[in-house]
Amino acid sequence: MDQREQAITFAHQNKDRFLKELIDLTRIPSVSTNPENAADMMKTAEWLTDELRKRGCKNVQIMPTAKHPVVYAEWLNARAEKPTVLIYGHYDVQPEDPVDLWRSGAFEPTIEGNYLVARGASDMKGQIIAVLKAIESIQAVGEFPVNIKFILEGEEEIGSPNLESFIRQNKDLLKCDFALNPDSGMIAPEIPTIVYGLRGLAYLEIRIFGQKGDLHSGLYGGVVENPANVLCQLIAGMKDSDHKVTLPGFYDRVRPLSEQERSEFTRLPLDENFYLKGTGASKLVGEKGYSWCERATARPTLDVNGLYSGYIGEGSKTVLPSYAMAKVSMRLVPDQDPEEIRQSMAKYIEMNLPDSMRYELIVHAGNPASITDINTPYVKALASALETVWGTRPVYKREGGSIPVVGHMKEILDASSVLTGFGLPSDNIHAPNEHLDLSVWYKGIDSLIHFFYNL
Amino acid sequence: MDQREQAITFAHQNKDRFLKELIDLTRIPSVSTNPENAADMMKTAEWLTDELRKRGCKNVQIMPTAKHPVVYAEWLNARAEKPTVLIYGHYDVQPEDPVDLWRSGAFEPTIEGNYLVARGASDMKGQIIAVLKAIESIQAVGEFPVNIKFILEGEEEIGSPNLESFIRQNKDLLKCDFALNPDSGMIAPEIPTIVYGLRGLAYLEIRIFGQKGDLHSGLYGGVVENPANVLCQLIAGMKDSDHKVTLPGFYDRVRPLSEQERSEFTRLPLDENFYLKGTGASKLVGEKGYSWCERATARPTLDVNGLYSGYIGEGSKTVLPSYAMAKVSMRLVPDQDPEEIRQSMAKYIEMNLPDSMRYELIVHAGNPASITDINTPYVKALASALETVWGTRPVYKREGGSIPVVGHMKEILDASSVLTGFGLPSDNIHAPNEHLDLSVWYKGIDSLIHFFYNL
Repeated sequence: MDQREQAITFAHQNKDRFLKELIDLTRIPSVSTNPENAADMMKTAEWLTDELRKRGCKNVQIMPTAKHPVVYAEWLNARAEKPTVLIYGHYDVQPEDPVDLWRSGAFEPTIEGNYLVARGASDMKGQIIAVLKAIESIQAVGEFPVNIKFILEGEEEIGSPNLESFIRQNKDLLKCDFALNPDSGMIAPEIPTIVYGLRGLAYLEIRIFGQKGDLHSGLYGGVVENPANVLCQLIAGMKDSDHKVTLPGFYDRVRPLSEQERSEFTRLPLDENFYLKGTGASKLVGEKGYSWCERATARPTLDVNGLYSGYIGEGSKTVLPSYAMAKVSMRLVPDQDPEEIRQSMAKYIEMNLPDSMRYELIVHAGNPASITDINTPYVKALASALETVWGTRPVYKREGGSIPVVGHMKEILDASSVLTGFGLPSDNIHAPNEHLDLSVWYKGIDSLIHFFYNL
Repeated sequence: MDQREQAITFAHQNKDRFLKELIDLTRIPSVSTNPENAADMMKTAEWLTDELRKRGCKNVQIMPTAKHPVVYAEWLNARAEKPTVLIYGHYDVQPEDPVDLWRSGAFEPTIEGNYLVARGASDMKGQIIAVLKAIESIQAVGEFPVNIKFILEGEEEIGSPNLESFIRQNKDLLKCDFALNPDSGMIAPEIPTIVYGLRGLAYLEIRIFGQKGDLHSGLYGGVVENPANVLCQLIAGMKDSDHKVTLPGFYDRVRPLSEQERSEFTRLPLDENFYLKGTGASKLVGEKGYSWCERATARPTLDVNGLYSGYIGEGSKTVLPSYAMAKVSMRLVPDQDPEEIRQSMAKYIEMNLPDSMRYELIVHAGNPASITDINTPYVKALASALETVWGTRPVYKREGGSIPVVGHMKEILDASSVLTGFGLPSDNIHAPNEHLDLSVWYKGIDSLIHFFYNL
């Protein structure tokens, strides 16, 4: 029996203890948004540092931020040619509300058949424990094969307000070859999933100003340009009937999807029914020439997120508004540049704005998309590990949204992220009776063992 | 000296007393919006009934409504072939705020050179007194030449909430040949003005519904139609680049402007500068083929008055809204029908709405335009009277807004209104230091004397 098999055996022999440890961890109500749980946040951080020290980590620290601390740890004694993996996780959880809908308490972990029911079981204390127990299993039978660093934050559920500056301030400490982010989950219990790309976001606010003040439409309706009508014309012109964005140069830097990617996408169960069910829409629409999954995850979009002008209360007011505003966001794909997209929007507005009007363009977000080549050794190591355990090739997926930490790691540390995880869409994360499918979770531990050996 | 000349002489000999009576009336703070002035409202109504009784009126009544009473009076002893004129007025005034900006108290009438400064001096106690003193002057020298009825409301400054039902309930009492409405004023002190047309209003609220609830744009951006984008497309398509409304059949019933009207409009000082100054816009726009004045008063329009969708607070929220709303109003001209316009809007939306969307169309207002033929004997009687006094032909003007009472009188009583008055744009109505130009006012009394004799 080689070391890898011995490690797997160790994991199988210790599965009940592993679960007990996860139950211990989920018992602590580390709700980051609730100031009353500040002590619980610290208790969770301490639980993790104890565990990391048991795993032989060095330089284990609870590092303060403006709000909740980051847990850092490292083990850097692998052979020189071995890579350094930065393992990301968050130890905070969502609030338990609505409390009444939990079958037992959110922080009273309960086994129900094949499931562990507890807040954080799936998102993502279960994922952190899976990594830690994979490491323990390997250490139990020999030397750990790669270098590892941990960055476990306590603010993910409140939007990671201090994470970017933390990474920036600890750039050298966090230096790595790539990042493992086990927060992205699986599409279905039988489909191991690798997320290798995330869309970026350019979120702009367009403000159109007409005459100085609001006017009475009876007195002046017919001789002044109306900023609300003008705003509607501008927005209407931003997309064509094929749902292509018409801003100048919008697609210039879009990296075409490779044949390999498009072929992998066809294996995903993200068909029309999936999106119909997920959106509650009576009918879907989208950019000509692309599949549903490509439209939602791998193609750029443009959507109005907010619209305001004039009088919006009950009834009527015959006002000619002097001002109109739209929040318009574009999901970006590699290699679109948020600043270039802002410029393109400004150019479009300038070309089309009547000269009686003035505009302002506010940037609320400008994050590029991120992508990891699925042919790198790190992704291949993970893919092979997942296939070994599940007996099926993992699917490769892009996500339609952004995960800020992935962008920060790319930008600040120049580290690509490989995203995976063993949570399921049916786990009720952020909802009552959050749970973890334990058979999937145990397979996850096994596959992480393979992953570390594969690197 | 014929009776007419004698009446004019009487008016000139009694001008100081006439002014004193106006000062008495403006001393009463008949602010309709302020519940504390309820007794003052009644005091004003009583002041007027006393005066009407002095003028020999019969059936003088203070008739209650849900809020402030209507003063009614009649004198119907003219020869059988003579018309019955329904004289409209309102005895309520705007609040005095901002109090500090008045040179003396709003209800402490002050003579400043050629002006009477007081709340209501111009709008419109001065106009009511002008009519009453013209009547007194005629009665002082002989029999009154026509039948008259008075309807003096106390709620004009709060939107006349009870006037329509009052007119409907007193339809027979208010029966008349036409209505004189001296609430519309003059363009300039040397330009006597007749208003013979008012635009109508179709005020609609368009609600567009997409998928059931708001969605996260990261998860689903790219596969669902966005109701805010769709609403903008709909609104953008409602007008073309010549500022013509493109709703189906929108112009079908528009009565063309006669050569006479267009020729009269050229005498109005309503040029580009007038509207630039009035609107504070840096540039004007409007429907191709029409003058500024025609665009603002005699052509139909379409304007967005309110626009709402999604997130409109500070910063950003990456929401795909499930709902978008626009308040869209159209100023109508004769003979457009508000209900047909609503149907046209519904048809337009149905033709252009993506089939993943649902819509609602709410009617907030639907009032037809009103117009009085400028060649009727009543308008000619007024025009001739004004020309006699001012030595210049009056201008004929349409107003861009609606005056609900004019519409109600037309609809319920089948009575056209002739609008005039002796207030000026510079009178600061609804503002501090409202005032009345007394030389214009005295000319107004003279011209009303001529008007009654001309009928």
